[in-house]
Amino acid sequence: MDILVAILTLSAAVIAILFAVFTARSVMKFSEGNDLMKKISASIRKGANAYLKRQYVIVGIFFAVMFVLLSVMALFELLTPYVPFAFLTGGFFSAFSGFIGMKIATASNARTANACQEGLNRGLRVAFRAGSVMGFTVVGLGLLDISVWFILLKFVFGLKPADITGAMLTFGMGASSMALFARVGGGIFTKAADVGADLVGKVEAGIPEDDPRNPAVIADNVGDNVGDVAGMGADLYESYVGSVISAMALGVAAFHNIQSMALPMLIAALGVVCSIIGTFFVSTKEGATQKQLLRALSRGTNFSAIVIAVAAFPLVWFILGKENWPMYFAILAGLVAGVLIGQSTEYFTSDSYKPTRNLAATSETGTATIIIGGLSVGMLSTLLPIVIVSVCVLVAYFVSGGADSASQGLYGIALAAVGMLSTLGITLATDAYGPIADNAGGIAEMAGLDKKVRERTDALDSLGNTTAATGKGFAIGSAALTALALMASYIDKVQTIDGGKAAIANLSITNPTVLVGLFIGACLPFVFAALTMNSVGRAAQSVVKEVRRQFREIVGLMDGKAEADYATCVDLCTKASLREMILPTIVAVIVPIIVGMILGCTGVVGMLAGATASGFLMAVFMSNSGGAWDNAKKYIESGVHGGKGSENHKAAVVGDTVGDPFKDTSGPSINILIKLLSMVSIVFAALVVGFSIL
Amino acid sequence: MDILVAILTLSAAVIAILFAVFTARSVMKFSEGNDLMKKISASIRKGANAYLKRQYVIVGIFFAVMFVLLSVMALFELLTPYVPFAFLTGGFFSAFSGFIGMKIATASNARTANACQEGLNRGLRVAFRAGSVMGFTVVGLGLLDISVWFILLKFVFGLKPADITGAMLTFGMGASSMALFARVGGGIFTKAADVGADLVGKVEAGIPEDDPRNPAVIADNVGDNVGDVAGMGADLYESYVGSVISAMALGVAAFHNIQSMALPMLIAALGVVCSIIGTFFVSTKEGATQKQLLRALSRGTNFSAIVIAVAAFPLVWFILGKENWPMYFAILAGLVAGVLIGQSTEYFTSDSYKPTRNLAATSETGTATIIIGGLSVGMLSTLLPIVIVSVCVLVAYFVSGGADSASQGLYGIALAAVGMLSTLGITLATDAYGPIADNAGGIAEMAGLDKKVRERTDALDSLGNTTAATGKGFAIGSAALTALALMASYIDKVQTIDGGKAAIANLSITNPTVLVGLFIGACLPFVFAALTMNSVGRAAQSVVKEVRRQFREIVGLMDGKAEADYATCVDLCTKASLREMILPTIVAVIVPIIVGMILGCTGVVGMLAGATASGFLMAVFMSNSGGAWDNAKKYIESGVHGGKGSENHKAAVVGDTVGDPFKDTSGPSINILIKLLSMVSIVFAALVVGFSIL
Repeated sequence: MDILVAILTLSAAVIAILFAVFTARSVMKFSEGNDLMKKISASIRKGANAYLKRQYVIVGIFFAVMFVLLSVMALFELLTPYVPFAFLTGGFFSAFSGFIGMKIATASNARTANACQEGLNRGLRVAFRAGSVMGFTVVGLGLLDISVWFILLKFVFGLKPADITGAMLTFGMGASSMALFARVGGGIFTKAADVGADLVGKVEAGIPEDDPRNPAVIADNVGDNVGDVAGMGADLYESYVGSVISAMALGVAAFHNIQSMALPMLIAALGVVCSIIGTFFVSTKEGATQKQLLRALSRGTNFSAIVIAVAAFPLVWFILGKENWPMYFAILAGLVAGVLIGQSTEYFTSDSYKPTRNLAATSETGTATIIIGGLSVGMLSTLLPIVIVSVCVLVAYFVSGGADSASQGLYGIALAAVGMLSTLGITLATDAYGPIADNAGGIAEMAGLDKKVRERTDALDSLGNTTAATGKGFAIGSAALTALALMASYIDKVQTIDGGKAAIANLSITNPTVLVGLFIGACLPFVFAALTMNSVGRAAQSVVKEVRRQFREIVGLMDGKAEADYATCVDLCTKASLREMILPTIVAVIVPIIVGMILGCTGVVGMLAGATASGFLMAVFMSNSGGAWDNAKKYIESGVHGGKGSENHKAAVVGDTVGDPFKDTSGPSINILIKLLSMVSIVFAALVVGFSIL
Repeated sequence: MDILVAILTLSAAVIAILFAVFTARSVMKFSEGNDLMKKISASIRKGANAYLKRQYVIVGIFFAVMFVLLSVMALFELLTPYVPFAFLTGGFFSAFSGFIGMKIATASNARTANACQEGLNRGLRVAFRAGSVMGFTVVGLGLLDISVWFILLKFVFGLKPADITGAMLTFGMGASSMALFARVGGGIFTKAADVGADLVGKVEAGIPEDDPRNPAVIADNVGDNVGDVAGMGADLYESYVGSVISAMALGVAAFHNIQSMALPMLIAALGVVCSIIGTFFVSTKEGATQKQLLRALSRGTNFSAIVIAVAAFPLVWFILGKENWPMYFAILAGLVAGVLIGQSTEYFTSDSYKPTRNLAATSETGTATIIIGGLSVGMLSTLLPIVIVSVCVLVAYFVSGGADSASQGLYGIALAAVGMLSTLGITLATDAYGPIADNAGGIAEMAGLDKKVRERTDALDSLGNTTAATGKGFAIGSAALTALALMASYIDKVQTIDGGKAAIANLSITNPTVLVGLFIGACLPFVFAALTMNSVGRAAQSVVKEVRRQFREIVGLMDGKAEADYATCVDLCTKASLREMILPTIVAVIVPIIVGMILGCTGVVGMLAGATASGFLMAVFMSNSGGAWDNAKKYIESGVHGGKGSENHKAAVVGDTVGDPFKDTSGPSINILIKLLSMVSIVFAALVVGFSIL
């Protein structure tokens, strides 16, 4: 049984990776276009590579320090000796996922632009395939990491189930901290470059977006790759792996058998196969309308979701036995909840619906009203997702027999998270192709291609916004469920360490350490959002100054007679974002240890619950406010409320600029934050049990 | 013993009310100035009266419906028969506190302006005395309500201690719902008028603030009274009464004796006396500088705080017995925490410190950066208050013996809230005089008084901002502590109803009903903030249209030859704000019942904890963002970063306008929301225990 599981999971991992490799090869067969396009693409590639190289150096130092720290703890038997190594592999694979995604994205941006010269459908094919490479790399590496460690710990070292999952949770911490570095650093880079380029280029100098005379234009395109692609890859690797291993750990806690541990792995493996099949349904006839393109993409994701919804049933029946088959509904609840949160996101942020249209109308009374309006759209949009997640949690808990056995109910919640992320391969593909299309548009502009090409890349990009909304639903929803599952894993871990003694006896919400932990935890997303927004502000200001300097000092730049010094801007963004990413990440790693040392394990549990609740709300609020502002601006640009260049449009641009760090830096980082807090708590649990004050 | 307590508390109530009456008489002796000033003041008074009258009609309907509902519940023995009457009196006194405050404020605005003609110090004296009337009316009526009900229930109806506090908690619900109506309605009125007057008058027509040609100028001044004065009065009456009665209820739960119930009443009574003495220390020599004035005010509040800190010690020793004297430190912790939160508020929002100065500097790069900057200042500013409240909670809990007896620890937390609010008489006086000075400035402008007068009222107003920051610290901090105490009261109530059976057995934070309640509760402040911000937006838009219409249609208005139709604007604001205040309040009353009926009592407890944590954070965030923007704008107006009229100043004005509903509508309303949720839960506990689904 257990060998079969290991083989099946490993096979799925290999299949995903092979699929990614073959898809990548097929992408590389497309032409990059003319020499100018090749040159621009090469500059972007060079900038992105340089950024990642330097990011890895800094992250490497962090990982080295943590490795030593964890090794010392292992020496004192506060951890098993596998932990430091698991930590490293988690970080490595997370980084690698982002790296591969970035590689394929920077290799396919010019190819997409060139394909768009031939037709919209051809452009979609290149961009979607590149997105698929990223999607299947993430799930493939995730499953590889999980299955190899499972095989090592189970068959080579012969550990007990509880020890296996204990060690595996540690590579979740590695993956989470890498993901946070990638998301925060990349998010700061991309928004600093974006804001800097827009403020000086578009507003002050009055040149169009992506104009080659703008010194920050390459940095802006590099930012799309290191932020939206590499950051997202590392982020979702972490979500994916985190949901599977926390479910494995809770399965062992609930049933003490290998089957319950196998189920999450097998669902994930099944999801890979279904997702690959789904990609073949993404095709459309030449000359398709945008609606037809969207339907083509949805066909792929819907097909995958339906197949997994059907196939998961016999799997649960077979693995958990017929007395536990209702746990199938936990998986289903997760899948459905993910879709519904995505639809809620779309409702609040798409200009096809009332909220964003009304927001666009508030621009009529000025900047202040569109800012207030956008903030309240975001705040109001938290209600539906929280109700959806709540219902999902209750369903998952109670169908899994939580009324009789809390640990089974918690396992059910974790299974819901796995169900939600099971189709990640294809949902991530539809998500990741957006930034590629965005980059392709930039290259089309800079290379002076036909206007039709830019229109086509814009069509792809805007299509990407819709699919990205669905993707965000999965990312945010699964983050909340996984964080809850990890909280349960933490409690289980503490009970294992101290043999069910006092450390975690009173988790009542009226226990003041739980309450105070809750307060502190709920505060963290606010502080984290403030820190990351400030970082974007500081980094953007340095870009603004540099771009102004170049406009002033480089003679002939504005007439197109001299070339801008792109590399300096890229370098500046790199330095600024790497400098700024350190503090928020360190905060996320240190706070759980401090809270634990002062308030004890009950305080940590309170902190995790508070951070999950308020983090979920802040992430939804900030992402949706940002999305609504972005699309309200685009809606005005389509010609309503005075259209482009009007006072109303200017007000909407301010809204969009405020929304940039909201939706692309702070919002998504909070998703990782709440899981990293749990991961750190789990790894340092023994320390807290042994040495806390209260 | 119990008769003595009743007499002492009642005496303190009478003393406070007499002091308010005498102070009011001394204010009325000052002259209102010339005929024009009298006329303007009369218009403001008329508008404010008209608003309150119509507000009371709508609120009256709500109270009538609730009274019938509660009576029906009492008939079915789900409540004691005293409850409906207690509910009514709570609402009545809360409204009455606001009413008296508004009366004295509208009677003293012209008097303050006139006194400022003679000197700054004389102006301070009138405004501070008027503020004192409000402060001592609130605490006097609060103590009167508490002591009369105590006497009735104890000596006339002869109830047991637990039944006494059970009935008294109900007038907390009456007070809270009245306070929410007053804060939300008044907050919408004042900001709709403010935004409407500024957007059309200042920005579009280019006339100065408070210019008599602006049709919304009277409405703007009415708004200061119905929002900042009547709203604040009702609000703090609710905080004050809520903290005392929740402490009484928890005292009974912990010690089952009359002493523990007497202590909060006696601390409050002691606080009244200390506060009255403190007011006599507020005086300064003629020609004092602003710093000296501030010192004069601080001398009053500091003196009161120190006296109560000293006098509370023997009181606790004597009442609770020497074995419980460490509970004194709970009271002290509350007092100190209130002061510290106030200082943190001042640090983040005053232009004497870095955060607001840096925020002003972000205006250099435009509107978007000052918006992002203000949001992050507000978010970051949540950290210190949350740490202060956390430490206060832990200290109060553990010094009160919470380690051995949870109910004693919870009583300690409630005592901290009482300690924090014990000096409310004088802190509210220093808080309430701000809007009066603001109004005086408006009258000085409209009556065309000497420029020096406006400068003096501005000096008083800006002084008021500093003291208001301290006041806000007390309001927000005590709201969090009181909400926690009420949560404990709720649990106690449920246990009493079902005899300690299953309804509330598992309050563990891992119980999914608790967790889901936590999620829903944490979401409520976000939704509430969104609703109230939208209301301000809608109401402001109707004012904007009306002001534009008058400028267009009234011939000779801009040349000063025709008079604006002020009454229509006042009427419009009245209608709009009354219409908009209904939905948010209904939401706050209905949600706890729905959550309870679905999730049961454990879900309600989760909801209360979630709402308290996220509500505290949102209230601090929104108040401080708003305060920082306001003062950053004033800082720029003082001549830095280009000064008044520059592009930077325009950016700062947008920030200030966004901050208006943040700090004066949504932020303070959330304070009330979190307590009203608890109050409603307590009153409807029997319904939930009997009929909930989960």
